[in-house]
Amino acid sequence: MADPGRLERLERRVRELEEELAREKRGRAAARARIDTMSAEVTDSNPYSRLMALKRMGIVKDYEKIRTFTVAVVGVGGVGSVTAEMLTRCGIGKLLLFDYDKVELANMNRLFFQPHQAGLSKVQAAEHTLRDINPDVQFEVHNYNITTLDNFEHFMDRISNGALEEGKPVDLVLSCVDNFEARMAINTACNELGQIWMESGVSENAVSGHIQLIIPGESACFACAPPLVVAANIDEKTLKREGVCAASLPTTMGVVAGMLVQNVLKYLLNFGTVSYYLGYNAMQDFFPTMSMKPNPQCSDHNCRKQQENYKRKEAARPKEEVIEKEEEIVHEDNDWGIELVSEISEDELKAASGPVPELPEGISVAYTIPDKEENSVTGETVADSEESLEELMAKMRNM
Amino acid sequence: MADPGRLERLERRVRELEEELAREKRGRAAARARIDTMSAEVTDSNPYSRLMALKRMGIVKDYEKIRTFTVAVVGVGGVGSVTAEMLTRCGIGKLLLFDYDKVELANMNRLFFQPHQAGLSKVQAAEHTLRDINPDVQFEVHNYNITTLDNFEHFMDRISNGALEEGKPVDLVLSCVDNFEARMAINTACNELGQIWMESGVSENAVSGHIQLIIPGESACFACAPPLVVAANIDEKTLKREGVCAASLPTTMGVVAGMLVQNVLKYLLNFGTVSYYLGYNAMQDFFPTMSMKPNPQCSDHNCRKQQENYKRKEAARPKEEVIEKEEEIVHEDNDWGIELVSEISEDELKAASGPVPELPEGISVAYTIPDKEENSVTGETVADSEESLEELMAKMRNM
Repeated sequence: MADPGRLERLERRVRELEEELAREKRGRAAARARIDTMSAEVTDSNPYSRLMALKRMGIVKDYEKIRTFTVAVVGVGGVGSVTAEMLTRCGIGKLLLFDYDKVELANMNRLFFQPHQAGLSKVQAAEHTLRDINPDVQFEVHNYNITTLDNFEHFMDRISNGALEEGKPVDLVLSCVDNFEARMAINTACNELGQIWMESGVSENAVSGHIQLIIPGESACFACAPPLVVAANIDEKTLKREGVCAASLPTTMGVVAGMLVQNVLKYLLNFGTVSYYLGYNAMQDFFPTMSMKPNPQCSDHNCRKQQENYKRKEAARPKEEVIEKEEEIVHEDNDWGIELVSEISEDELKAASGPVPELPEGISVAYTIPDKEENSVTGETVADSEESLEELMAKMRNM
Repeated sequence: MADPGRLERLERRVRELEEELAREKRGRAAARARIDTMSAEVTDSNPYSRLMALKRMGIVKDYEKIRTFTVAVVGVGGVGSVTAEMLTRCGIGKLLLFDYDKVELANMNRLFFQPHQAGLSKVQAAEHTLRDINPDVQFEVHNYNITTLDNFEHFMDRISNGALEEGKPVDLVLSCVDNFEARMAINTACNELGQIWMESGVSENAVSGHIQLIIPGESACFACAPPLVVAANIDEKTLKREGVCAASLPTTMGVVAGMLVQNVLKYLLNFGTVSYYLGYNAMQDFFPTMSMKPNPQCSDHNCRKQQENYKRKEAARPKEEVIEKEEEIVHEDNDWGIELVSEISEDELKAASGPVPELPEGISVAYTIPDKEENSVTGETVADSEESLEELMAKMRNM
């Protein structure tokens, strides 16, 4: 049956829908084109003006160099996602993201992910958001657990070859994971590859955290001594009482991500003093710093090998050159006499009873590395023994 | 002329457009319904589980109380936007946002805003994003400059009446502005109203920042002494050399926002130690703390009035009650003996030559309050004189 008004109504409906769709799309489209060269020009439309101003301010000599670096972020949760966002906004060259979790509404108490992303993989959701924020950054994402054998090998391969120029290693690996096994896997990989990395962590009660720089052979690795935490002075009994879910706060995670990426920028762009260990106690606004030498009896044989390499290099290098390298900083004379809270020597480490070194006030070990006998349920950790990586990874896979 | 296929083509087009629009909208829709009661239930779909876990961990006694509080955030830039996002994700009851800027691509080196929001007002863009993140929070946004006379009066009115229960004052005002005039306007308003507030700031060279708690009559207000900054040891000459745009970093701003909101949570939810002043020097990872008593000769007559009120209240209150109020903290005995770096007494303030108090190492004044004679170009600041607020605001309007 003929309906004379039908055609007109359909035409009107098409116009309406087209307009609405255009409005929706306008709202989402990446609103800027790629930018070939970073400019310091001060215009509202230049996303790099405030970063390039760091040169004029005398903070960074060559900010553009940021575009040549590749950073791998392992764990894209409360700390890792904000870390990736900060690096993206700073205009890093390339980011590799590793995670195997999905976004859940239960993550909405931390920054970055949004409710409409619930159900997506964290790396996929992160890549989508980050590309919109800065299309100049290259992304490579891996939706897997790095601790299984196949994935661990692939992870090692990407760390070794995944830089902007394929075949070259990444400049830095950042650990933003939330468990011991994943940290140990990163530690094992970086010791074997001699890869410099930074570790980060937030306590289960959400009120303390830390970052740590690990240069294989030069500073203590994750297996040299038990991981350190900034104590929040909370009774451990209350902490594990019901043991169902850890607390977390966007504040603590934001501060830890900020301290981490600040340390990354200082390390890559050569300004300020790079921290070896920086803790954050939110209850008392206390930020301890320290550094730790590697343990000559470290259970990770690759760590011991890296220590030997480092000693040889140091011995071969003329003393002045070493100092010059350390001091190549735009500003800084440490006029205030700020000191590291503590420096633990090899002797102290040797003298310490068991694996627990003496620590500055306010810092304590997260847990001691479990004895092998106690270990029957959870399995051995990668750094626990003298076995080859392959044997260990095979064991881990069977857990 | 009849076109027999036209109707079908239009029908197909409508279906296609409807599908595409649905897809677009699915991607953006607020993916969760409102939640009436905060629950500690550990499920993937509970956005409050990790926050409510703070109770089980023994950190916060009554986390749900967060929903009863209203916070005003003045300035929704690099620090203010992240501050608002953290409070939103923590489930604050109501947020009032004040800003008169537009989002620009030049802001993309800081967290929160996205390129597709360029051109929107900051408060409008922020409200849209924050509502999607947590529809349980109430928002009230004001797209104006608080320093003009009419707006200042409206601002005072909303601070006094804009709580969840209309007619009651907000619980806290947060200053996240980037200029002296706006800070002085907030200071003037809070001194007049006896409103507790927190101030935040980031240096022009992007590598230092601070937060400060101001309780009118009890701690130094912004007019009692020149604003303090954490020195970055950078030559002032290089800082202002070309003077075209300040540098900024997402890291420094993220850390400052995190410290600020952590202090807000500790203050509102009564845990840990609330900091009166916490600085951040990113070059050396140095975090000075201190507290300052108000200046009995403060140029703001409302500050002096609040000081008298405070003294009277203190004198009337039995000594023990005062201590109890301070110590009502879930944990904390300050077992590590952490001390404030410095406490500046009234006498020291009086004795200090001019308006510059003696300061702990690493902290210096941002600038001295300009002499009136030097002031002919920029005009007087609100706190500079004995004139009435109305007179001063009228002058400011004419600048």
